[in-house]
Amino acid sequence: MFKINRNFAKLQSNYLFATIAEKTKAYKAANPAKDVISLGIGDVTLPLPPAVVAAMKSAADEMGRKESFRGYGPYEGFEFLRQAISSYDYKARGVEIAADEIFVSDGAKSDCGGITDLFDADNIIAVQDPVYPVYVDSNVLSGRGGQPVKGGGYDNIIYMPCTPDNNFAPELPSKTPDVIYLCYPNNPTGSVLDYDGLKMWVDYAIKVGAVILYDGAYEAFVTDEKLPRSIYEIPDAKFCAIEMRSFSKTAGFTGTRCAYTVIPKSLKVGGVSLNAMWMRRQATKFNGVSYVIQKGAEAVFSESGRKEVSANIAYYHNNAATIRKGLTDMGFTVFGGVHAPYIWINTGADSWEFFDRLLNEAQVVGTPGSGFGPSGQGFFRLTAFNSYEKTLEALDRIKKL
Amino acid sequence: MFKINRNFAKLQSNYLFATIAEKTKAYKAANPAKDVISLGIGDVTLPLPPAVVAAMKSAADEMGRKESFRGYGPYEGFEFLRQAISSYDYKARGVEIAADEIFVSDGAKSDCGGITDLFDADNIIAVQDPVYPVYVDSNVLSGRGGQPVKGGGYDNIIYMPCTPDNNFAPELPSKTPDVIYLCYPNNPTGSVLDYDGLKMWVDYAIKVGAVILYDGAYEAFVTDEKLPRSIYEIPDAKFCAIEMRSFSKTAGFTGTRCAYTVIPKSLKVGGVSLNAMWMRRQATKFNGVSYVIQKGAEAVFSESGRKEVSANIAYYHNNAATIRKGLTDMGFTVFGGVHAPYIWINTGADSWEFFDRLLNEAQVVGTPGSGFGPSGQGFFRLTAFNSYEKTLEALDRIKKL
Repeated sequence: MFKINRNFAKLQSNYLFATIAEKTKAYKAANPAKDVISLGIGDVTLPLPPAVVAAMKSAADEMGRKESFRGYGPYEGFEFLRQAISSYDYKARGVEIAADEIFVSDGAKSDCGGITDLFDADNIIAVQDPVYPVYVDSNVLSGRGGQPVKGGGYDNIIYMPCTPDNNFAPELPSKTPDVIYLCYPNNPTGSVLDYDGLKMWVDYAIKVGAVILYDGAYEAFVTDEKLPRSIYEIPDAKFCAIEMRSFSKTAGFTGTRCAYTVIPKSLKVGGVSLNAMWMRRQATKFNGVSYVIQKGAEAVFSESGRKEVSANIAYYHNNAATIRKGLTDMGFTVFGGVHAPYIWINTGADSWEFFDRLLNEAQVVGTPGSGFGPSGQGFFRLTAFNSYEKTLEALDRIKKL
Repeated sequence: MFKINRNFAKLQSNYLFATIAEKTKAYKAANPAKDVISLGIGDVTLPLPPAVVAAMKSAADEMGRKESFRGYGPYEGFEFLRQAISSYDYKARGVEIAADEIFVSDGAKSDCGGITDLFDADNIIAVQDPVYPVYVDSNVLSGRGGQPVKGGGYDNIIYMPCTPDNNFAPELPSKTPDVIYLCYPNNPTGSVLDYDGLKMWVDYAIKVGAVILYDGAYEAFVTDEKLPRSIYEIPDAKFCAIEMRSFSKTAGFTGTRCAYTVIPKSLKVGGVSLNAMWMRRQATKFNGVSYVIQKGAEAVFSESGRKEVSANIAYYHNNAATIRKGLTDMGFTVFGGVHAPYIWINTGADSWEFFDRLLNEAQVVGTPGSGFGPSGQGFFRLTAFNSYEKTLEALDRIKKL
């Protein structure tokens, strides 16, 4: 008799956002007349930039003509897109990342899940707490979780609390990890790390022989030029860090699907190149991203694309500032929302109770902090990704509560 | 110090098609004046059907307007596409597969790689030999290979020889497997299995408690209405089989990327639903397929889409028949190419030597049979996916050799 992966049974509940979607769906079904506003899942609402739409349509036309049709593309992505990423996302900020250190994918979540294939099951992982659930769940599925702990978490994972007390910058762990997940600007707390704060982690990883998996999905929201937007702004990071980025929150690609992962060629262990390993993994378990979508992503870097994306980010920044101000005026203590699209609220109550109350009484959906880990208990995440009008309306409803 | 996945070192060589691509690239670089014809990798050449192009362009426009923009879609794919698959690929052939048993993905290779997440590392897998390398390599990476064997293969994997002697239909294995990979119409041999042949496997799987992973990527090439095109035409398969299909070879989506996997709700082990497990896996490690691409895939099922796809398949069928006749006339013994786009040639020589000779002396690229497994030694795969003109030219060059 075949045996299922027993680690599935260790997952403590449904995937967080699936649970929120189900609760919201049930509420809407029971209250069809109510207008529910979602500031929950980090999903964008502004349409794709015109430059992206034009590029995708043109690419679709190319695919419809015999002379310009394209079949299988490179597993790692087309050179035109990897070159554009190398130039605009790195070289323009003084960081040298070559095109063959960049792997284009269909999403940062796919990369986060897939990257665990590179590591043995007995590595010890460390995560920030609260944390994007995918880091933990994908490691639990591949046997790195250990046993579930009552009240949340797993006994084999190092949780590094991020709270107002440490300004959401975790201390170095007392137990030595092998794989360290860092996310800045942070999801869900909206916090950032400055150069020295990030350098501390790079130095530590090199000292203890750990690899850092750096999630930079929200780097476009950094407004202070002094803050690092890539971990490779710390030169030694090329020897210890993998960086994951996405077009989702930058250019509104949540439903269009394109992202990339950087693995520097200098990142090796025992002489083995992780860049070469990932290439082999992608060749075996992935077949590249649609040509049409890669052409759309390339257009993000065109002159008009960059202008349009900047305008969209500014729009979401304004929403974030509006939420911050609105909630602060109501007496809430809030964090984030300056260099990030997320506002992290100290509710002074149980996170899921706050969720239910907001959904049932104000028809506003947010994300319970406890869903991100034990240190998220009592907190609540709102996103700046809805329209300005809906954001104002949501604030108004919360105020009335 | 972090530890890499030691199973990578067990992979015996580069991914087969990556090796072929490298050899071809090196030859072209050294002989820039030579015109190389590829009948190697199974990649289509006809452009996307007009209905698909129109649907993708219209979807791109939708994504560019605020009122019709779409962010994250369902992890399992949009209902409109899953319903169309349920109706046209199953109900039309008398098979009931519900929309919630269908999971849309970016490719059959992604699904083949990902599906191994559902099973414990200690399951014994059985594969046809010769075999599509992804089945083996993805299991080796997750620890199911055991040790590499000299001359090819792994000591923990059951290889089921498919040769002219058994008409490429393997016998039931003497050692009991937990997970059985079957691919029909077969890649690389181009062979098919009739109803009784397929039923033998379904009955066997149920008897021994195995799960069948059925790769039906080439079902559109079946021309004999009596041959099964889905494993679910055997009713009991709903209790023991997962089926994977793709738009790649049907509608020319190799560079557009869309596929799907069927997991019936009745497929359970110890009361646990594999359908629910896969949903959880996809929610954790995948974020759905681009809306634009799913709209393109939906158009494959429109009236004009179906006509256009049929015409393309007929074109490739004609190529296959041309290759079969040409090679038979030259005195080769050939198999496949009737219900499949692959022609399997008995070369009477070493497969890689034949590859090198064809590349160097005729500038024709094919795939060495030994790259698919020990029983592929001495064979060579050609595909029907190039243009009719190039196919004729390739045959002419081989004849001159």
